[in-house]
Amino acid sequence: MNPDDALRHLDAHYQAMPPVAAMRMRIAGYDGRQLRLHAPLAQHVNDKGCAFGGSMISLMTLASWGVVWLHLQAAGLDADVFVADSEVRYLRPLFADLEVSASLAGDAGWDVFVATLRERGRARATLAASVALPNGGVAAQCSARYVAIARR
Amino acid sequence: MNPDDALRHLDAHYQAMPPVAAMRMRIAGYDGRQLRLHAPLAQHVNDKGCAFGGSMISLMTLASWGVVWLHLQAAGLDADVFVADSEVRYLRPLFADLEVSASLAGDAGWDVFVATLRERGRARATLAASVALPNGGVAAQCSARYVAIARR
Repeated sequence: MNPDDALRHLDAHYQAMPPVAAMRMRIAGYDGRQLRLHAPLAQHVNDKGCAFGGSMISLMTLASWGVVWLHLQAAGLDADVFVADSEVRYLRPLFADLEVSASLAGDAGWDVFVATLRERGRARATLAASVALPNGGVAAQCSARYVAIARR
Repeated sequence: MNPDDALRHLDAHYQAMPPVAAMRMRIAGYDGRQLRLHAPLAQHVNDKGCAFGGSMISLMTLASWGVVWLHLQAAGLDADVFVADSEVRYLRPLFADLEVSASLAGDAGWDVFVATLRERGRARATLAASVALPNGGVAAQCSARYVAIARR
């Protein structure tokens, strides 16, 4: 699958999920390493006029999941991807649209993940995601582990 | 405010938030300690036919926030409540409606929280939340810290 087709396929996957369709999010970009998502503040505003924490973690979860999914596609692997655990820090209130990005955490590459999944039918990856502030800072950040289980 | 009025007021607060209105959640019960929320699986299903992780953490965040809010109301305090950080573990897939509960973590009572907020205008509480499995087990659990800041 070429990269554009993979992103279109990922977007269809996202929008087929009712909770995601309700978020009015879209894929903002992918450079082969980092996936970026966008969602309008109006759809995610809380009682204080800033972005709802649950929306920020949902979008960080989706972005991280999407990065794993894109790397499975690129490797030609068919697997279900589950979130196993996550740690989130909410650093500053966000009074603008949600700009979320996710990529593999640390210096690890995808090679070990792909090789492990091929060999054992199961592999784990830790993803780092964040929600940007308009001034370049960070509104919230998340570290989460994902498990891929090969489909038989 | 009597307890029924407080729950109606909390529900109005929830439903006024666009991301929450989209979740079709309702308050399932409150016994003065634990708040329970309910949401239909159909609105929160992922690509694997089970509950989306982002929906589970969103509902656990809302339930925990609601417990803090109810205790502030009971104490006659006016404060904004923010989530500061959270740790989530996703233990089992959930193929049923989301039944979420939250209460203060550990043996701490609300007295210290209320006294601290009155004295310093700011206080923290750690909340424990979980999503139940139909068989009595746990699908996901969350520990999160909330900060209340008195309105001037």
